[in-house]
Amino acid sequence: MGYISKRAIVRGFASGSAVILGCSEIGEETFIDEFVYIGYPRRDKLLRSPRKLSNLDSLSSGTRAGRGCIIRSHTVIYEDVEIGDRVEAGHYVLIREGSRIGSDSKIGSYAKLDGKVEVGSNVSIQSGAYLPHLTTIENGVFIGPGVIVTNDPYPVSRKLLGVRIKEGAIIGAGAVLIAGIEVGERAVIGAGAVVTRSIPAGMVAFGCPARIMMTREEYEEKKRMREEAGD
Amino acid sequence: MGYISKRAIVRGFASGSAVILGCSEIGEETFIDEFVYIGYPRRDKLLRSPRKLSNLDSLSSGTRAGRGCIIRSHTVIYEDVEIGDRVEAGHYVLIREGSRIGSDSKIGSYAKLDGKVEVGSNVSIQSGAYLPHLTTIENGVFIGPGVIVTNDPYPVSRKLLGVRIKEGAIIGAGAVLIAGIEVGERAVIGAGAVVTRSIPAGMVAFGCPARIMMTREEYEEKKRMREEAGD
Amino acid sequence: MGYISKRAIVRGFASGSAVILGCSEIGEETFIDEFVYIGYPRRDKLLRSPRKLSNLDSLSSGTRAGRGCIIRSHTVIYEDVEIGDRVEAGHYVLIREGSRIGSDSKIGSYAKLDGKVEVGSNVSIQSGAYLPHLTTIENGVFIGPGVIVTNDPYPVSRKLLGVRIKEGAIIGAGAVLIAGIEVGERAVIGAGAVVTRSIPAGMVAFGCPARIMMTREEYEEKKRMREEAGD
Repeated sequence: MGYISKRAIVRGFASGSAVILGCSEIGEETFIDEFVYIGYPRRDKLLRSPRKLSNLDSLSSGTRAGRGCIIRSHTVIYEDVEIGDRVEAGHYVLIREGSRIGSDSKIGSYAKLDGKVEVGSNVSIQSGAYLPHLTTIENGVFIGPGVIVTNDPYPVSRKLLGVRIKEGAIIGAGAVLIAGIEVGERAVIGAGAVVTRSIPAGMVAFGCPARIMMTREEYEEKKRMREEAGD
Repeated sequence: MGYISKRAIVRGFASGSAVILGCSEIGEETFIDEFVYIGYPRRDKLLRSPRKLSNLDSLSSGTRAGRGCIIRSHTVIYEDVEIGDRVEAGHYVLIREGSRIGSDSKIGSYAKLDGKVEVGSNVSIQSGAYLPHLTTIENGVFIGPGVIVTNDPYPVSRKLLGVRIKEGAIIGAGAVLIAGIEVGERAVIGAGAVVTRSIPAGMVAFGCPARIMMTREEYEEKKRMREEAGD
Repeated sequence: MGYISKRAIVRGFASGSAVILGCSEIGEETFIDEFVYIGYPRRDKLLRSPRKLSNLDSLSSGTRAGRGCIIRSHTVIYEDVEIGDRVEAGHYVLIREGSRIGSDSKIGSYAKLDGKVEVGSNVSIQSGAYLPHLTTIENGVFIGPGVIVTNDPYPVSRKLLGVRIKEGAIIGAGAVLIAGIEVGERAVIGAGAVVTRSIPAGMVAFGCPARIMMTREEYEEKKRMREEAGD
């Protein structure tokens, strides 16, 4: 099928089966792939309106993507999302309303930004990472595959508490971050860790629950030795 | 493309690219979104028949969804699934044959009900949760994002053993539940826990392996204090 | 929509909405389902070319699938993938360029082969498993749901190190395997384990971090007792 709203401005290229709703703006050289849905209406709008594409289109506030982005197949981006320039999304990425993504960031396949999520520039979010409402990811952060961030210290509560991951931090694959913690600048979390407390800047933590094991400098030294070695 | 079986009864609205097979019944005001597949045939039927859409359609027993449901984009629901009223499915949800979902339940994006899974009413299953064949989820249960339930104590064995999660229980994000255990009524499992034994009703357990740490009453008291505090 | 390259040879059946690019070869009785994308171009090609389907088609080297395969809905397979006979892919499977999959293997829904991944014959990869670039899975291996394999001991480094899982090994649900380790022949990893060191052939390990707990023979004996018992 494919459907592009009359209100949408598409300066890049939209594939034949893509659906683009509302007054979305797609920048020059930005590519919207097959089976992609852009400008998906938030839940309350879906609930209160007759659910036909033409209605959804007129209800959608659209979404904005900059220049030179690649939005790969089967991805869904809700309305009211702001995407910078040269952002890349993998396949099956889901970005909910209110999220913002800085320029030159990459969002891996199956990753979900589930609510208002702030993502800086030059961020790398690997496949399948889950970032809930109120998560903040600063510039240059690396989020490994399958990382789960939470936002409710005592589910199910009325008061959510976002996690902040500060500039240059690295979160290893499959780590679970408990609601409300902060991962400091350049801190590193090991793969498979369960992080129940804030980790100070420049520290490396791993285990279940995660404990501080070394400094980022020591970590970089180990990395350098391995890269120079033969293995 | 889109395809709706001549045997299907669609009282709600099916989007243009949706595929609905067999004698599926879709209730009033139920919305079937773009790129959704309903009534997908079980494996043995796929294996033994020429795989053209018209054949698959004639083989499919269809699926039944009640009134006022929302089945979001890119979701796949197999044949022989029973869905109550006002059920919501996120994007990329996968529900295999034989599953039943009670009214007013929500199934998050990327969640998979992988075989015969019983889900009660007012259940909330968050994004990416994995519920295998023989899992039972009672009314009012909350399953956090990325939870993995298993059904084989010694893989790969011939005798599967389902997990039962009883009324009002809460399973934290990323928890892994070992085959055959039971999570009692109103019990709580912490995020990232690996649960190797049954947890009695009203108890709170976390860690790897999970140990009982407090009662649900103590947990509710901590929650209340936090909600009332300023942080 | 649907699109089949003029250069592609489809001996099986391709559904109406499927996209097949480049000189892909699809064997007899192989089924390409709805919303599937085959022959997806690698990143560097996407970056340097005008992104229209006709361009992508002419850039794609295509992919090769043998006879009697089932590629279920919403799956994406990149170019330069080699798939044997009677391989089954679930829904939302993502296989990147350079991967090879032996005959009679099954790749579960949401599983991702993220780069050059070698998969033997008779392998079972369950839902949502993540296998990065340089992973090797030998014949007859079982990978449980939600398993995360990594390839970078000190992210983000320039020197990646693949994990090798040897013949007949079993990896339990939700396990995390650290870059560079080897899981020996017939070894078993328990559900939820974080595996930081190589596990010798015939050993069973679990926990965070994983420790050797018994032999495969003892494991099989426990399994046999349970299968014969009433529970």
